[in-house]
Formats: sequence, structure tokens, C-alpha cells
Amino acid sequence: MTTTFARVQPDLSLLLNQALQTLDYGQQPATLYDPIRYIMGLGGKRLRPLLTLLGGQLFTDELAPLVRPALATEVFHNFTLLHDDLMDQAPLRRGQPTVHERWNANVAILSGDVMLVRAYELLTENVPPALLPLVLRRFSQTAAEVCEGQQWDMNFETETSVSIAQYLDMIRLKTAVLLGFALELGAMLAGASTADADHLRQFGVDIGLAFQLRDDLLDVYGDPATFGKQVGGDILADKKTFLLLTAQAQAGPAQRAVLGQYVGVQPVPDPVAKVQAIRGVYDALDIRAQTEALINDYFQDALLHLERLAVPAARKKPLRALALQLLEREV
Amino acid sequence: MTTTFARVQPDLSLLLNQALQTLDYGQQPATLYDPIRYIMGLGGKRLRPLLTLLGGQLFTDELAPLVRPALATEVFHNFTLLHDDLMDQAPLRRGQPTVHERWNANVAILSGDVMLVRAYELLTENVPPALLPLVLRRFSQTAAEVCEGQQWDMNFETETSVSIAQYLDMIRLKTAVLLGFALELGAMLAGASTADADHLRQFGVDIGLAFQLRDDLLDVYGDPATFGKQVGGDILADKKTFLLLTAQAQAGPAQRAVLGQYVGVQPVPDPVAKVQAIRGVYDALDIRAQTEALINDYFQDALLHLERLAVPAARKKPLRALALQLLEREV
Repeated sequence: MTTTFARVQPDLSLLLNQALQTLDYGQQPATLYDPIRYIMGLGGKRLRPLLTLLGGQLFTDELAPLVRPALATEVFHNFTLLHDDLMDQAPLRRGQPTVHERWNANVAILSGDVMLVRAYELLTENVPPALLPLVLRRFSQTAAEVCEGQQWDMNFETETSVSIAQYLDMIRLKTAVLLGFALELGAMLAGASTADADHLRQFGVDIGLAFQLRDDLLDVYGDPATFGKQVGGDILADKKTFLLLTAQAQAGPAQRAVLGQYVGVQPVPDPVAKVQAIRGVYDALDIRAQTEALINDYFQDALLHLERLAVPAARKKPLRALALQLLEREV
Repeated sequence: MTTTFARVQPDLSLLLNQALQTLDYGQQPATLYDPIRYIMGLGGKRLRPLLTLLGGQLFTDELAPLVRPALATEVFHNFTLLHDDLMDQAPLRRGQPTVHERWNANVAILSGDVMLVRAYELLTENVPPALLPLVLRRFSQTAAEVCEGQQWDMNFETETSVSIAQYLDMIRLKTAVLLGFALELGAMLAGASTADADHLRQFGVDIGLAFQLRDDLLDVYGDPATFGKQVGGDILADKKTFLLLTAQAQAGPAQRAVLGQYVGVQPVPDPVAKVQAIRGVYDALDIRAQTEALINDYFQDALLHLERLAVPAARKKPLRALALQLLEREV
């Protein structure tokens, strides 16, 4: 997906990747700093810092001072990936061994800790002192919310009853608020009004929610050739996604029987049969259309916030294009 | 030791403990925030925030604005304890189950992460924007150094050859720099000059080094009734302390034979014999006097930095008294 974003914003992607190359996390002990270089070097879309620059670009053409604070969101994001992979015991990240697999759990804990420190350092670089209190307050609030989201996600694994509202709140915290903050950061640093910064943040949160729901949907209905993850992976892991929770809430007796037969039975005796059966329930309840409707709701709400920004429409085009590409909707 | 400090600084200890009661780390999910309240509630000397207030008191009588930033050092310190206990697989902290024992490893990782965020939040509360960049830069640098110290400490466990210089650098990073920063923070927030803030920081680093060496010494020569930890614990765990490293560097053939017979043999067949044998080597090489001499060097250097502060001598008394009590030297 790197190429997709680079197509929309070739200059900004280049700017970010060049700046990423110059980051100095530290040298000694190597067991502390090598894992940081390793995970940051695994690539990825660099979506969050790109959002910061796009958020700033609405209000200024002078983006250079925003670059290093923008990278704080990428370092923070990778810190959460590093610790989440350890907590989830994930063996692979972007097709490569995770840090706790390649080194060990203690290295993963401590390298992650120092990444969070480095994120704060980057965040405050070149930021005018008058803006610092607000930038710091918003970042810390967002960082704590991301931790809350991860904790809810882990709690849900062992909870028998999770409501759809709880699920949406979890993905808002775990995924969406950081996208919102990345945009808001760009606005704040570019001198936007509080109202505009707030609209941008809400635009980002909406896009983040839509993006996560689309991810849930692709797990079931995605094209195995382009999805990048195992199709049906959430179903096999009994992951409480929007699709499963909605199906559980709406299931009639027959569907409830199917869900009861398959969900929560680990290890899975027949993976193909399980994916097929659960997908059958989703189809019967029209879960796909319901999910798409909710994605569209969030997308429309996002566009509304974009519209309300006190900025000429022409300046909003790159951000709108990125949102469309993120959701792969060529509207 | 709480009572010791409270005797020196009853008003400041009270002020800190009252402020600690009012800290709101967050509520939901409880599995994220309960462990923070738990570890912060286990007590402890509250040494670091006390140092911040004492550092500030040299330059101002208006300590109220310093209280919440001071608590950032305590929250940060407890964050490091929480993650270190997990990495060291320690079962107990202040006689109570550690967080990863009482909850689990994932809760310990994530609660620790959010504590680091809360430390940054507290640090910047009420701080004049003009001071923020420096305060943040110094805190982040210190935080990264503490992580480096912990990583060196873990590395040393499996390294066969650790030099005394490497060991002293490790305890400087792991323990001493945070004491130095706590004092420096008080100075910065109270409007001290850069030179004075720097002297205070170096005073704190020296005291921290002396304190850690004294801890090494008490492990071998301490009074079991007052030490608070198992006497001989470092010896039994083959911990590469200043005492062991010095003994290894100075051992003649006979002592080298004894060290070779006992050090690195795990599990320990006869704990009493091991402690006795190693202590015998230390006695033969006069390790106790050598350690005390180094502690005294650091202490004298600390006093020199205190002396150089451009502050009336009377104002320095509480800090000097605290240092004396910390090292239990009634000079």
C-alpha cells in the first residue's frame, strides 16, 4: 500500500522516508537500540506522519518544521506494535520475525519503553513553546487511550458478552484516535484554529473507524490475493469483530445453533468447514451489507467534518483522495 | 526509611503523600489502572519527589507548583520497578506480590506503558511554557538512560567479563541519573541558574552512586535485622557487584580458586558455605574498606557540588541532612 500513498503524495512520502533514515534512536547498548532500528526498518505505510503533513498542508506550505513531530506518531505507532506483538505472542510482523522472537521478551519490553520516550522527544522538537502544553496534553491523552483500547481488546478475548457499542469503542481507542491525533497535530503545528483542529481530528477518527471495520469485512470477504493476511483468520481465532457480534445479536435459532457449534471451539477441528459455516450465517443475516452501511456512515461523517474546515476546497483534495484510497472507494 | 525522611522533612513528606492520594491515573478498563494504583500504593520512601522539592527549596519558598511535576519522578520510578520486576521475574515488591504475579505479564507491560505516559503528563503540569523544552529534554534523556542502565544490567548477567568501569556506568544510568534529574528538576522549576541546576544534578548523581555502592556493601556486611533484603542475596545470585568485580580483579591464586569454585555454580548446593567463602575472599582482599573509600569519594564530590551552589549555606542544610541519612552517616 506504500505505493498507493506514494502515488497520491509522492513528495510527502519521499520527505518522510528521508527523514526516517536520519533518525538516531541511540547506539549503546545495541540490544536496546538495534530492535528499534529493526522494527522501524520493516516498512509500512507511514500513514500517521503522512496524515500529520496532510493536516498541516491544509493551512501552510511550510511543512519542514512539521516533519520530525510527524515522525513521533510513527515511532509511537511502532512502539505499540512492538508491545502488542509481544502481548499477542505474534511470531511475524510484515513477514519478518517479531522483536520478541528475534531477540527476547525482555528486549521487546525495554526497547518499546525507550521508543515511547523517543516519540515524546520527536513530538516536541521545533515546536513553539506556546504550543507545547496543548500538543503534549493531546498526545498523552491519545497515548493513554491507545493503551486502553489494547487492554479492552485483550479483555474481550475472555469475556463472553461484548456489546457492539463496546467493540466500536475499543477500535476507536485502539486504532482511530491515533489517526485523529496525527491529523490534529498537523493542524495545531500549522497554526489552525481550535475548531479546525477539532474537525480534522474527528475526520481522522471517523476514517479510522471505517478503516478498521473494512479490515473486519475483508477478513471474511476479501480477495486472498490482495488482503495481505489470511482470509478467515478472525473467524478461526473467534475474534469478536463487528461481524461476529452483529451476527450473534441478530441470529435466529438456526444461526445460533451454527454459531454455538463453531465459535469458541479451540483448536479448530476443520478450519475450512468453520469459515464456510460462519460465512453462511453472515450471508443469511446480510452482515456484509450492514457492515458496509456502517462504514459508509462513518465515511459520510468524515466528509462532513472535512467540509466544515474553514479552508478552500482545493486544499482539501489530497486528504479526501487519501481517505478514498484508504477505504479503496473510488467515489 | 519513610520515617527517617519524614523526620528530616515532615512537612514536605506530608505534602507529597497528600498529593499522591489525589492522583487520578484513570478508571476504565480497571485491569489497566488498578495495577497502577496498586504499585503506587505499596509505599516506599518517595525519595525522588522529595529531592525535587528539596532542590526547589534551595531557591524558592513557593513549592506548591512543584508538587505535581515532582510526582512525575515517582510515577516514572514505579514504572521502571513494574517493568523491571517483570523482566527479572521478581515475585515480590515491598513484601507484596508484583503486578505480573498478581495480574499477569501483559497487564504489567501495558499498565507500565500508561504509567510512563502519566509521568510525562505530570511533569509538564503547571510548568511555564518557556521552561518546558528544557524540562522535557532533560527528562527524556534521563528516562532513556535509565532504560540503558537496565539493559546493561541484564546484559551483564550473561557476560563473562564486566569491568569495574562498566559496572559503575551501569549503576550511574540505572539508579543515579534519576536522583540527579529529580534535584535538577526542582532547581529548574524554581528558576535556578543553569550552573546551579547542574551542580545539583551532579550532587544527586554522586549520592546515587554512593547509595548503590552502599547497597552492594550491605548485601554482604549489613545487619539482617535492618537491611530489608536477604543478606548474601547478591552473592548467592552471582550478581556482578562492585565487591565481586573488585575481588575478581585483585584475587591471587588462592582466592581465584575459591571464586572459581563458587561463582556461577547454579543452583547453589550449600548457600551458607558459599556466602561464607566469598565473604572470606572479600575480607582477605579488604574489599569492604575499598568500597567504603569509593563511597566516601562520591560523597565528598557530592558535598563539593553542594558547596558550589550560589545559595546561602543555611538553605543547604536539609539537603545535606538527607544525603547523610541516605548514606546513614551521622557525620
